[in-house]
Amino acid sequence: MTETFGELDHPPRLLMGPGPINVHPRVLRAMSVQLLGQFDPEFTTYMNQTMALYRQVFETQNRWTFLIDGTSRAAIEASLVSVLAPGDEAVILNCGRFGLLLTEIAERCGAKITMVEGPWGSVIAPEAVEDAVRRVRPRLVAAVHGDTSTTMAQPLAEIGAICRQYDALLYVDATATLSGMPLPVDALGADIVTAGLQKCLGGPSGSAPITISDRAAEHIFSRRHVERGLVLGGADGAAGRRIGSNYFDLAMIMDYWSDKRLNHHTEAAAMLFASRECARVALEEGLSARFKRHALAGRAVAVAAGAMGLKVYGDPAHKMTNVTAIHIPEGLDDQRVRGLMRTEFEIEIGSAFGPLTGKVWRIGAMGVNARKHAVLATFAALETVLRREGFGFTPGAGVDAAMAVYDEAAE
Amino acid sequence: MTETFGELDHPPRLLMGPGPINVHPRVLRAMSVQLLGQFDPEFTTYMNQTMALYRQVFETQNRWTFLIDGTSRAAIEASLVSVLAPGDEAVILNCGRFGLLLTEIAERCGAKITMVEGPWGSVIAPEAVEDAVRRVRPRLVAAVHGDTSTTMAQPLAEIGAICRQYDALLYVDATATLSGMPLPVDALGADIVTAGLQKCLGGPSGSAPITISDRAAEHIFSRRHVERGLVLGGADGAAGRRIGSNYFDLAMIMDYWSDKRLNHHTEAAAMLFASRECARVALEEGLSARFKRHALAGRAVAVAAGAMGLKVYGDPAHKMTNVTAIHIPEGLDDQRVRGLMRTEFEIEIGSAFGPLTGKVWRIGAMGVNARKHAVLATFAALETVLRREGFGFTPGAGVDAAMAVYDEAAE
Repeated sequence: MTETFGELDHPPRLLMGPGPINVHPRVLRAMSVQLLGQFDPEFTTYMNQTMALYRQVFETQNRWTFLIDGTSRAAIEASLVSVLAPGDEAVILNCGRFGLLLTEIAERCGAKITMVEGPWGSVIAPEAVEDAVRRVRPRLVAAVHGDTSTTMAQPLAEIGAICRQYDALLYVDATATLSGMPLPVDALGADIVTAGLQKCLGGPSGSAPITISDRAAEHIFSRRHVERGLVLGGADGAAGRRIGSNYFDLAMIMDYWSDKRLNHHTEAAAMLFASRECARVALEEGLSARFKRHALAGRAVAVAAGAMGLKVYGDPAHKMTNVTAIHIPEGLDDQRVRGLMRTEFEIEIGSAFGPLTGKVWRIGAMGVNARKHAVLATFAALETVLRREGFGFTPGAGVDAAMAVYDEAAE
Repeated sequence: MTETFGELDHPPRLLMGPGPINVHPRVLRAMSVQLLGQFDPEFTTYMNQTMALYRQVFETQNRWTFLIDGTSRAAIEASLVSVLAPGDEAVILNCGRFGLLLTEIAERCGAKITMVEGPWGSVIAPEAVEDAVRRVRPRLVAAVHGDTSTTMAQPLAEIGAICRQYDALLYVDATATLSGMPLPVDALGADIVTAGLQKCLGGPSGSAPITISDRAAEHIFSRRHVERGLVLGGADGAAGRRIGSNYFDLAMIMDYWSDKRLNHHTEAAAMLFASRECARVALEEGLSARFKRHALAGRAVAVAAGAMGLKVYGDPAHKMTNVTAIHIPEGLDDQRVRGLMRTEFEIEIGSAFGPLTGKVWRIGAMGVNARKHAVLATFAALETVLRREGFGFTPGAGVDAAMAVYDEAAE
């Protein structure tokens, strides 16, 4: 018996968790445009435009600025496996789940890892990074810019300088911050930065922008090996050790995105259309206006929570603007509250990972949802749910406080 | 200066190469549906439905039938790296570019490889596979079902039986054939089969269906290691050697697609919507009607080519139905002819790889394009271009022959 289920048919839901979030309507439309062949001149023109667009989003001159066909985690792995050969030294900053993820991936690359660790809810001091880098002299230093598991944003400026001083490459996972918080790649001295669409860029998960400095690209190309059967004359290889993955071999992927157009994967054209439109939307708004919009929404979330007597988690000096974690008050049931937000109001807020499981909610205000109406709707709903669950606060306090933040900003 | 280029604005192009091809309009619409959060009950229901749909497409009872978030090549690598630990023996069937690709990926997994090779344009005899398997006793035998580089379809039935006899796992790359040519996974005794959307399934590249037998899953789970920072109580690991990739760790990806819903990547929701709709379209048509439609279109292409005096490449007994390679006649310029097809008629036909570069054109009639009008339009255009390039044949012969194939089938 064939069973084909029905059409997609779900209610519109306001996604106010740590991502994925609602997709910008222009991006949804871009994905419904009919495709072209991957070596079609019109399509390769779109590829080149996408490179130029993301150079602007990353604030970089890097020639090698393109997309990895996979989720944000795919771009992290492509970066680490293409740089780190087995036995290479890596220094990894870790004070959250996504710092641990960098460690986990680098371990699988066979790298020797030195972790610079801090407690969840904090960031790493540059002195600690410098100590480790001076001692280990790593090939790569890896850091998460905004770790949504803790909502902390790692300051990067001094770390970029340290990496240059000790001739280490700096990798930054900016999945959760790109186009939402300032991340001027060249000014920071970061060598490889990767992101995803499903956070501040307001697209679906499945395509991951990446930018690579010339010095990092030079190292990666020293490990280049071209597949057999692809070009007349067969394979060719550089002196360096072959990269441990074919799909994530950035040397081959750069050859594909270059004028050589050496076939590697078949570019995920619908996701490229989405990525291209995400960047266009962001650049038309302007990065600085976009950073301000995210900061304002984040401030409104934090202030509204405070006005309800809810405590914001983590070091306030380093909080990401676009995601806010709130301690779950004693006596309230995490799952039940999130369930009521969803079933009664069609609003999603986020749970947490690891040591924070059941201890905090994570509220994102990102991309198309970093807007007044989304923040107000979320707090109107949260007030209702918490009031009916017996949590004591002045009804209206949260919404009024959020509105006051917006009123003040409008003056 | 901000530069955001324009809206997507390209002419409709008929994609008659070896893939990607035009996307079915229902699939384009599915991708423009607003998203849900990845742990939303509605979304996990869609995930479960997608599993059930692809079980039918793969003709399997395999519980582990799901999607890899990447192009078809991502699913190949996920399969090989999750099965093959460094030093494991693998036997690989190779008589085309995509056989070589299996070798290339398995080498990067650190496997010891025995190739069973044949010339391009042929397939491998089961006796040769049995000889190698008896000698090597590999953990895995890997084969390409339809290798678009040569347009040959490898018979698999006897190879499945050989693998069972010698207790090897059988991996099959069915990127280019799933839903276009018969591939009854359970009946063939294949253990892991992967595909892509951009061929017979009529979707965009970027999501890759995979199915895994219980005995293959058991081996993969013996290598399971859960990330730290993800669950309370920290990491846990099985006895087997950790899989060499995090993104392609099928044990973690199966945990994510199971009721555990252990977070791994953020599911590429728009591509999941596309994959789900591709399967629905295929199953509503019916697999057997779909196989017939592809076979008919492929026959029309081959017969039309013959009627024009063009020679079909490769062993006719093993030709894929959905892609046909045609020898480029002496004196005609490969690129120029394909360029005229595109600029004058907005039709794309394919070039070739490796030793066939400049020697054959590849014409695909797949998915939504495995239809009379698409084949007729392609040959009407090809006749015009070749006639004006000075190739001698009876004008109208190709189109008439294709039409006769369809007329005969309609009787």
